Amino acid sequence: MGQVAWKGMFMSLFDYKTEKYVIAKNKKVGVLFRIVQLSILAYLVGWVFVVKKGYQDTDTSIQSSVITKLKGVAYTNTTELGEKLWDVVDYVIPPQGENVFFVVTNLIVTPNQRQGTCFESYGIPDAVCSKNTDCTEGEPVIAGNGVKTGRCLKSGPVNTTGICEIFAWCPVEKKKRPKIPLLGKAENFTVYIKNSIRFPKFNFSKTNILDTDDDSFLKNCRFSEENHYCPIFHLGKIVSWAGSDFQDMAVEGGVIGIRIEWDCDLDKDASECHPHYSFTRLDNKFTEKSVSSGYNFRFAKYYRDASGIDYRTMIKAYGIRFDILVNGKAGKFNIIPTIINIGSGLALMGAVRTIENLRKNDKDFGC
Amino acid sequence: MGQVAWKGMFMSLFDYKTEKYVIAKNKKVGVLFRIVQLSILAYLVGWVFVVKKGYQDTDTSIQSSVITKLKGVAYTNTTELGEKLWDVVDYVIPPQGENVFFVVTNLIVTPNQRQGTCFESYGIPDAVCSKNTDCTEGEPVIAGNGVKTGRCLKSGPVNTTGICEIFAWCPVEKKKRPKIPLLGKAENFTVYIKNSIRFPKFNFSKTNILDTDDDSFLKNCRFSEENHYCPIFHLGKIVSWAGSDFQDMAVEGGVIGIRIEWDCDLDKDASECHPHYSFTRLDNKFTEKSVSSGYNFRFAKYYRDASGIDYRTMIKAYGIRFDILVNGKAGKFNIIPTIINIGSGLALMGAVRTIENLRKNDKDFGC
Amino acid sequence: MGQVAWKGMFMSLFDYKTEKYVIAKNKKVGVLFRIVQLSILAYLVGWVFVVKKGYQDTDTSIQSSVITKLKGVAYTNTTELGEKLWDVVDYVIPPQGENVFFVVTNLIVTPNQRQGTCFESYGIPDAVCSKNTDCTEGEPVIAGNGVKTGRCLKSGPVNTTGICEIFAWCPVEKKKRPKIPLLGKAENFTVYIKNSIRFPKFNFSKTNILDTDDDSFLKNCRFSEENHYCPIFHLGKIVSWAGSDFQDMAVEGGVIGIRIEWDCDLDKDASECHPHYSFTRLDNKFTEKSVSSGYNFRFAKYYRDASGIDYRTMIKAYGIRFDILVNGKAGKFNIIPTIINIGSGLALMGAVRTIENLRKNDKDFGC
Repeated sequence: MGQVAWKGMFMSLFDYKTEKYVIAKNKKVGVLFRIVQLSILAYLVGWVFVVKKGYQDTDTSIQSSVITKLKGVAYTNTTELGEKLWDVVDYVIPPQGENVFFVVTNLIVTPNQRQGTCFESYGIPDAVCSKNTDCTEGEPVIAGNGVKTGRCLKSGPVNTTGICEIFAWCPVEKKKRPKIPLLGKAENFTVYIKNSIRFPKFNFSKTNILDTDDDSFLKNCRFSEENHYCPIFHLGKIVSWAGSDFQDMAVEGGVIGIRIEWDCDLDKDASECHPHYSFTRLDNKFTEKSVSSGYNFRFAKYYRDASGIDYRTMIKAYGIRFDILVNGKAGKFNIIPTIINIGSGLALMGAVRTIENLRKNDKDFGC
Repeated sequence: MGQVAWKGMFMSLFDYKTEKYVIAKNKKVGVLFRIVQLSILAYLVGWVFVVKKGYQDTDTSIQSSVITKLKGVAYTNTTELGEKLWDVVDYVIPPQGENVFFVVTNLIVTPNQRQGTCFESYGIPDAVCSKNTDCTEGEPVIAGNGVKTGRCLKSGPVNTTGICEIFAWCPVEKKKRPKIPLLGKAENFTVYIKNSIRFPKFNFSKTNILDTDDDSFLKNCRFSEENHYCPIFHLGKIVSWAGSDFQDMAVEGGVIGIRIEWDCDLDKDASECHPHYSFTRLDNKFTEKSVSSGYNFRFAKYYRDASGIDYRTMIKAYGIRFDILVNGKAGKFNIIPTIINIGSGLALMGAVRTIENLRKNDKDFGC
Repeated sequence: MGQVAWKGMFMSLFDYKTEKYVIAKNKKVGVLFRIVQLSILAYLVGWVFVVKKGYQDTDTSIQSSVITKLKGVAYTNTTELGEKLWDVVDYVIPPQGENVFFVVTNLIVTPNQRQGTCFESYGIPDAVCSKNTDCTEGEPVIAGNGVKTGRCLKSGPVNTTGICEIFAWCPVEKKKRPKIPLLGKAENFTVYIKNSIRFPKFNFSKTNILDTDDDSFLKNCRFSEENHYCPIFHLGKIVSWAGSDFQDMAVEGGVIGIRIEWDCDLDKDASECHPHYSFTRLDNKFTEKSVSSGYNFRFAKYYRDASGIDYRTMIKAYGIRFDILVNGKAGKFNIIPTIINIGSGLALMGAVRTIENLRKNDKDFGC
């Protein structure tokens, strides 16, 4: 008997149970129901499959390498520096040619600084004094350039306000930024940006450079809307594409973002996978009135004289920093996401029935 | 007749079929069923919509630019270096003020190194020798500073162990790190961190600086729990917020991570979108006993003497590297994710019915 | 009466409605239906739970710090530079030991450049001239090294083509890259890569270094397939693991990516969470015939002579850039994703019923 029961239970596993429906002749409800079903179908086909490419397996872990190289020289002739030619080695910091590079456009040079004592610069509240005891020996000047020596230096004999003497790299920087950028000609410099990418999941590699044997191509071309495979950019144009003016920006400096997007549909041909460039100004340009605009930093070149004493030339460099960001994803047909997305779409369709059922909770009746 | 059949088929498309239910008066099952439905509803409303903001379209591709600037000077007086003032240009590496910067806190200076022959330093196993043939000419010392010249130098005449002579930058570094950090005063330095962000999808920009016309604000304020819009940080406090002690860390060096999180609900006012800072020690501090703690690197300043010979001052710098990481996402109401999330929530509700049905497979009966 | 109605409505909330089924004895449909249900169950258990670990809460916001340190020396003896020993300070750029570092393998040195006038280098089309007016004064040479002075220099008296004289850092670089890499011995240098990671959500930290008290471990070990916890890599092996040859690559330079993957299942023991290394060549090696292969950059060391005039040694450095990329995610059991995944799985099962129902639209009949 037990055997029979087990067999019955096993066979009933393959019984197919179906629900019984009342075919309601109410056309209004029927039309509404079909509209909802159609919109889900439209969502499934239009959004999930066509727009979001739900039938594809995607790889977002792009491997990218960026190599940059600037070209261009500028000649300046100032009373301070004399005749000077600036080449790539002089104006690009750091020199490595990575995905972030900085081009000097304006500078304040303070030559021949040596360790010693001198006046602190004007306009620093903490260095204002009236007597020697205002300048406590050994105390650093807040937001200043050195430590106080304990002496209050006055320009006139009966002058009541003076400036603390400091031990520092002397003389200190005189704060006067040229109104016209010294290296405004940097606008015409060019930068070559080589970007190689790879999608490891699909073992697919590409670069942003036209695959050509023509040596002269890379020597003469310039990037433009029509010429997306020439990776040589005019600095002035990059800045204008980002919505700023190079000469304006050159005075105080700033940060420009260059974004390279690779959105590759590998179901199509490899030649259909293109880089898309976009340019934005990353430092907030709306704060130009505020105290925190621009971009600059100080660095120094250190020398040693014949007697073994170190001295340095300090440079406050204003300029434009370019940040290159590479993003990307690739997709290729795969059966698993296809099934999952069809499944969830159908689950959504099943949901509609549930809504309708919930709504008609009260109207149901027994057999 | 065919036409009639087609019409019938077409009309039946809009028939609305509904399932027939047995209203079970079993209260226990009913209560259970309602509880499950309520918990799904709670999940849908509470988790998907309130916590996860499922009604919003999100943008996670934040565009960020970080500009950092240090301030502060320190005075040291050692027998080796004499009186020396350290300013920003001296102790910040690299000088560019990007999102990663390093502050020197301790150093070993090896001045006036010239290419020549000298003793290899003590304690390198590969340089220990007893006779000249132990020092094969031209072979580099493993984990050492130069190539062997083929001579074994001994301090005493009958000494059995000596050290290989090497061709290197001589004299080699003597390994003795100051126990008290030379630039411990770096604790009081400040760093100004300017972070401008942009969410391209919503064209929304913001900075971490109070939008003020008051010039003195940025000169006097300090970041604290109460003052989140003053981006001037005291280095010592950053380290203590990360759970370490500056003076401890200054001896051997380390890495501190500064994370800025922007989680913006753009359905609210722009002024409600705040940066959140968190500070962590990134190098594993638990390995302090182990051989691999701290952070240091060597660099050199190159000079040339009157006769055209290069020499250099090599510096082994210990210090703290600060890595600034910006993350963020923004959300704004959008009809598409709202519909999708409501849909999947309802699908989940439909699932409950299925569970119940599966459970009662055996109890079902025909009409 | 109203009260009675309300009570009835409230009680009916807990009525349990169940659908009525026809137990179809059609075994074919039944088998098909069970197969579909089983495959969904297999998907749910196999894919969602076992492969994708759907029962875990995941943290992908890994906090990582990378510290790198190179070791090794190389001796060169060339007519140009004489006997020279290269140590870490000389060949690693930048010196900081961050996650990107560059090792010089080949170089072109142009010593003693001074600002002045000289010949532009050969092979620059814009500098070719036949008379002085071809060299407009003050105009920069396109893709050249300086600005034209207005003079056309000719080597022979009746020669028709000459080269413009330029104001530049003179003499200009002579373009001849050594065929055999000067620092080919860099193949035997080693790099120590310390990677500390942290998953903030689970407060879990780990490093890629064996937790040992044995001081000699890090001095003697080398990374290999069998020894994953020794983070000291032989440069030549890194390049060969990336599928390239070090000596080939050293001539023109290139970029190697080192990827460290942490995929941690924190339901298991912490010691089960291992770093996985992979090595790839990031610059496209297939473009070797094209004009854009390799990696190099120029930098200079600036000196000042006794009379205060600056001069420099310009170096065009070819070499290998190593980019270290850290990725990771950690998962730990959490009740919320478990419920959500079971729920959606069941919703998917509910969907199957719906499909079947849709199919049998026409066959349904009333009670």
